Amino acid sequence: MTTADFTPAERDAFYRLIAARRDMRHFRGGKIPAAVLARLLHAAHQAPSVGLMQPWRFIRICDPKLREAIAGLVDAERQATAAALGERRDEFLRLKVEGVRDCAELLVAALAPDDGTRFGRRMMAAEMALCSAACAIQNLWLAARAENLGLGWVSLFDPDALAERLALPAGTKPIAILCLGPVTDLYPEPMLAREGWRQPRPLATVVFRDRWGQAEEAL
Amino acid sequence: MTTADFTPAERDAFYRLIAARRDMRHFRGGKIPAAVLARLLHAAHQAPSVGLMQPWRFIRICDPKLREAIAGLVDAERQATAAALGERRDEFLRLKVEGVRDCAELLVAALAPDDGTRFGRRMMAAEMALCSAACAIQNLWLAARAENLGLGWVSLFDPDALAERLALPAGTKPIAILCLGPVTDLYPEPMLAREGWRQPRPLATVVFRDRWGQAEEAL
Repeated sequence: MTTADFTPAERDAFYRLIAARRDMRHFRGGKIPAAVLARLLHAAHQAPSVGLMQPWRFIRICDPKLREAIAGLVDAERQATAAALGERRDEFLRLKVEGVRDCAELLVAALAPDDGTRFGRRMMAAEMALCSAACAIQNLWLAARAENLGLGWVSLFDPDALAERLALPAGTKPIAILCLGPVTDLYPEPMLAREGWRQPRPLATVVFRDRWGQAEEAL
Repeated sequence: MTTADFTPAERDAFYRLIAARRDMRHFRGGKIPAAVLARLLHAAHQAPSVGLMQPWRFIRICDPKLREAIAGLVDAERQATAAALGERRDEFLRLKVEGVRDCAELLVAALAPDDGTRFGRRMMAAEMALCSAACAIQNLWLAARAENLGLGWVSLFDPDALAERLALPAGTKPIAILCLGPVTDLYPEPMLAREGWRQPRPLATVVFRDRWGQAEEAL
C-alpha cells in the first residue's frame, strides 16, 4: 500500500490537519488508551532521519512524583523567562505556557548520544541529528491531532536539570516536554497570536527566488 | 473547520501517509504546477515554532546555472564524505544520494538570522529555532507525499559555500537542499535499509518509562 496514490479527498483532509494542529497548553485530564499511544509513537518513529540514525528517544512519564518534579522545573524556567523579558514580564506571566500538570500523558523527547553517523553529517552533524528528532516530534504532533488529541511542545526547562532527573546518559539532550491529551477546544489560531503576543508573518515574506530577498512570483 | 474532529478514515489515511513518506533520491523530471507548489509552501508555513518566530525561509531555485552550481557543491561534499567513510567508501559511492539535477523543483531551506525571540528560548535558543525549521520541512515533506510527489532532504553540502552562492545575509544558515517532484515509484522502505546500508531500530528501543533504559510496557 505504501506506493499507492493519495486521493484529492485524502490530500485535503491532510491539509485540514496541518491547519488544525495547535501548540496546546489547555488540557482536560483524562486518559489515552495504550493502543492510541502506541500509534502515536509509531508515527513518530517513522520520521525521516539523517543517515537513518533515528536519534529520537521518548520517555513516558508515569510516576506522579516525577511529573510534579518536571512541573517544578518548568515553573522555575517560566519565572526566569519572565525576569528576562523586561517590559513584557507581566504580559508573559498572564499567558498559560504549559499543561504539564493537566495533560493526560507527559512525554519527554530527547536526542540520543551521538552514534557517529557520518552519512549526511560530515558538515552540520549536531544540527542534522536535531532536525531528525524534530521531524519525529512533528509526526507525533500531527498524529495526535488526527486522533483528536492536543499536544504542546514545552521548551521552558533547564535541559541539564531535566537530564539529571531522568538519569539520561552523558551526551543525551532533552529537547521537549510534550504535553498530550484530550482538550475541550483547540485554539482556532496559534495561542500567541490569539492572545496578542505576536502575529504570524505572511507566507510571501519567507519564500524567495534564487537569492535572499528576491520575491517569488508564483505565490 | 479547524476545531472539527477527524474521522477514523481520515486518521487512517494520515497514518498511511506517514508510512508512505520517503526520502527520495530518484526523480523523473517534470514540472509542478504553481498552485501545488503554493499549497506545499503554505503547509510548511503552518508549522509550529517556538515563540511564533517562524524562522524558516525557502529559496526556490529557478536559474539553471544556480541549480548546476548547487549540484556541484553536493558532488564535492559527496566525495569528501566518501573519503571520510574509510572502508565503506565504495559502498557509499554506489548509492544515489541526491536528485538535485533530476527533480522538478529545487528548494533550499534556511534558518533566518536570530530575531532575538526569548519566549521558550532562554535555554537552547539555537536548538529551538532549528527544531521549528525542521518541523516546517516535515510538514512540506508530508504535504508533498499527499500530492503524490517525492521529496528528498539533501544535507551533503558546505553550508557556508551555499550561503554565499545564495547571497544569504550574515547569521542565515542553509539546512536543507530539498529535491521535489514526480517520481516513478516511491521506495517501499527507507532507501538506506533497502540498499543494505543500515537497518532501522525497533520502536521499543527508543521509548522508555520514567527513566532512561527502563522499558515501556505499553508498547
